[in-house]
Amino acid sequence: MAASDPLSLVFAALADPTRRAILARLAQGPATVGEVAEPFAMSAPAISQHLKVLERAGLVSRTTQAQWRTLTMQTEPLDHASAWVEQRRREWNLRFDALEAHLKTMQARPETDNSQEAGS
Amino acid sequence: MAASDPLSLVFAALADPTRRAILARLAQGPATVGEVAEPFAMSAPAISQHLKVLERAGLVSRTTQAQWRTLTMQTEPLDHASAWVEQRRREWNLRFDALEAHLKTMQARPETDNSQEAGS
Repeated sequence: MAASDPLSLVFAALADPTRRAILARLAQGPATVGEVAEPFAMSAPAISQHLKVLERAGLVSRTTQAQWRTLTMQTEPLDHASAWVEQRRREWNLRFDALEAHLKTMQARPETDNSQEAGS
Repeated sequence: MAASDPLSLVFAALADPTRRAILARLAQGPATVGEVAEPFAMSAPAISQHLKVLERAGLVSRTTQAQWRTLTMQTEPLDHASAWVEQRRREWNLRFDALEAHLKTMQARPETDNSQEAGS
């Protein structure tokens, strides 16, 4: 049932506090799986499952040097997620600005009428 | 298994192309359920289910006037989602800037050595 388009995978990956905490750690710099897992009272398979979701969304990449596996955050999927959200907020604000301008025009009319009354 | 904290509910709600399309429609202004459902070849219960997910995340509110039910987009949950993503990008960029400054310092050193060599 879960959508598998790139943007849906990114938002779904962000829809979990453990995965967001892992990303917050990796935003400070690359780390090993052990370093990332350390703060969590969680089994290795559970952490591994969360990392798989993050990797599938492209938010984390894994490189292997000697026997060390390093996890690195990737910003591009975050850019796409952010762009989508910002676009909605922009559209909403544009509509709100137009509404405000319209209300100001409406308010300006009675004032014009009042000044005419005061002048008569 | 799905997380139920506010931010997880928002990201989970955004993790579906139909729900994102509904929000994109509502970013243009409030609409009835019928207007929102129109572009989708989907049953009324399926649309209703998507609206419930959006409402539970606080992204859409429903008001009833006479027999008309109007859906309105709420920007606050989008603000929270955006703030979280922006914070990660900022942290990452700060780290990247620090790394760049460090690399420049490293590059500057051999130049100093070269000039000393040229002068000797």
